[in-house]
Amino acid sequence: MRAVIMHGPGDVRVEDVPTPELVEPTDAIIRVDAACICGSDLWPYRGISPVKRPSRMGHEYIGVVEQVGSAVRDIRVGDFVVGSFMASDNTCEICRAGYQSRCIHVVGMGSIGTQAEYARIPWADGTLVKVTGDITPERRRSLLAASDVLGTGWFAAVAAEAGPGKTVAVVGDGAVGLLGVLAASQLGAERIIAMSRHADRQALARRFGATDIVEARGDAGVAAIKEMTGGYGAHSTIEAVGTQEAMQQAIRSTRAGGHVGFVGVSHGVSLDGQELFLSGVHLHGGPAPVRRFLPDLIDRIMTDEIDPGVVFDQTLSIDDAADGYRAMDERRAIKVMLEF
Amino acid sequence: MRAVIMHGPGDVRVEDVPTPELVEPTDAIIRVDAACICGSDLWPYRGISPVKRPSRMGHEYIGVVEQVGSAVRDIRVGDFVVGSFMASDNTCEICRAGYQSRCIHVVGMGSIGTQAEYARIPWADGTLVKVTGDITPERRRSLLAASDVLGTGWFAAVAAEAGPGKTVAVVGDGAVGLLGVLAASQLGAERIIAMSRHADRQALARRFGATDIVEARGDAGVAAIKEMTGGYGAHSTIEAVGTQEAMQQAIRSTRAGGHVGFVGVSHGVSLDGQELFLSGVHLHGGPAPVRRFLPDLIDRIMTDEIDPGVVFDQTLSIDDAADGYRAMDERRAIKVMLEF
Repeated sequence: MRAVIMHGPGDVRVEDVPTPELVEPTDAIIRVDAACICGSDLWPYRGISPVKRPSRMGHEYIGVVEQVGSAVRDIRVGDFVVGSFMASDNTCEICRAGYQSRCIHVVGMGSIGTQAEYARIPWADGTLVKVTGDITPERRRSLLAASDVLGTGWFAAVAAEAGPGKTVAVVGDGAVGLLGVLAASQLGAERIIAMSRHADRQALARRFGATDIVEARGDAGVAAIKEMTGGYGAHSTIEAVGTQEAMQQAIRSTRAGGHVGFVGVSHGVSLDGQELFLSGVHLHGGPAPVRRFLPDLIDRIMTDEIDPGVVFDQTLSIDDAADGYRAMDERRAIKVMLEF
Repeated sequence: MRAVIMHGPGDVRVEDVPTPELVEPTDAIIRVDAACICGSDLWPYRGISPVKRPSRMGHEYIGVVEQVGSAVRDIRVGDFVVGSFMASDNTCEICRAGYQSRCIHVVGMGSIGTQAEYARIPWADGTLVKVTGDITPERRRSLLAASDVLGTGWFAAVAAEAGPGKTVAVVGDGAVGLLGVLAASQLGAERIIAMSRHADRQALARRFGATDIVEARGDAGVAAIKEMTGGYGAHSTIEAVGTQEAMQQAIRSTRAGGHVGFVGVSHGVSLDGQELFLSGVHLHGGPAPVRRFLPDLIDRIMTDEIDPGVVFDQTLSIDDAADGYRAMDERRAIKVMLEF
């Protein structure tokens, strides 16, 4: 089958690899209907994370179940499914508390690679959610978004305790940050300040519910948020970048007692204990437990309550995956969908 | 009046200083009934925090109101009062959200110095709470504990979301850690693991409600907590030290989705962003908003529901303050009460 392989920074190729087979009785094999390129795929693409050997890429997916292992009970051949980017048993104490992305049996789908025609899904019952109803093209791309970027933005908003009466600041205008805006809006936030200096992303932020846009960054960005909030800072801040500057901006933009939800994959970040101590913020984040939110998100998508799939501003055949990486790297695309 | 002055590391003297006067109309002057030496006073005493000039010491206090400014409404001359170690207006948005220690008008009482016969209390109405009823010697020392160590341990337990069904680990066996045990117990925690290797502190931890004691520290301490919790880690961890090792131990002892309440004044701590990201814990702490908890704590003390004052294992006249610092530095005393 065809699959995307990264050979080194900037070097992405589509190659023939063996079609996956069932390994554990709890596995399923899906035919991937669509996958996508993630902001986190750019870390190795840009040489910021090492690429030690040619690596399969991709961790987001929707698809149709082709085979199930002997221990799979809920998921059946022929089901149209969405799954999280982290496979989880959904039965351990961590999963039951809603942290499936830190399941004691977790398998990162990135280690398997879903930018491919087929994918093995560990813990199929605990990872996949079946979709029923009419899957229109709009809903299809939104379901794909649910697999990571929507679920991650949603988790960030929940971790930041976005809700009624709250002012929410969003650091990062990639797909996750934009969908954090959508999530904050859905969760009833009163005011949502998107921090962005790109017109196309600002427009999408407004469409998703942003009430204000701040173009300033760093200390100036913090000062702008403070000024807009009576000197106090935001109640809730979503961090969707993962750099030192973005984390500091998020923490400093938040009032004491407020909440920072951080979901940008952390790269080279070091937090000063004393600054954190004195900030008085709540800090929570990490790889989003998308599985916790999937049933609700699928429901909102299938009833057309939300349309997160509009973050995909480019759709390519898997054969053109390299173009998609380039477009995202050069910020010509917010999020690229790969079809098969 | 007599007051404690730190001249440099290990050099604490009692000297005559001017008696304080009202400065702002929102001030009160109290005659200090008792003060105490805080674990945080040991940072400069040990030369870990710089002592740039001779400094007034102390931020914990109970006392009787001697004078009030013209704008003080609720507190009256003659009231017996307990106040937080951070003076707060208790009316700003931050205060109203329960974060009085980060009030926009906050004044740290350490900058005023309560190890003295009299003290000026800024924002008297927002800082002080009047005590009514029979103040027995036991209740008196417990009220003094409420001013910081009890309130701080309580905040740590609340920040760590200690409660029914939870396993709580406590890093640090100073007065704050021990009162964190008490708080966790009062909040209904199912299991409380005190990390201590001192027999006297272990005994006090058990008296306050600890169900288990772990003597191991660092990686071995983390391994012990994991082993006691089915491999998952504690649901809630209280950090009451402030060092790099203690913070790491706290974060690593906590399961994904769990809560770390950190109240040890942070010294030289640097948190790796990626480790925090992958830990999946909630992190919250800082200078405790004692004022939030004071009315409830005073009520529990005056009804003899709790007896936090037993953390004071030495009581000295203010004239012997230097002996008190030495005893705490050498860990011969858990907490020293100073009388006038």
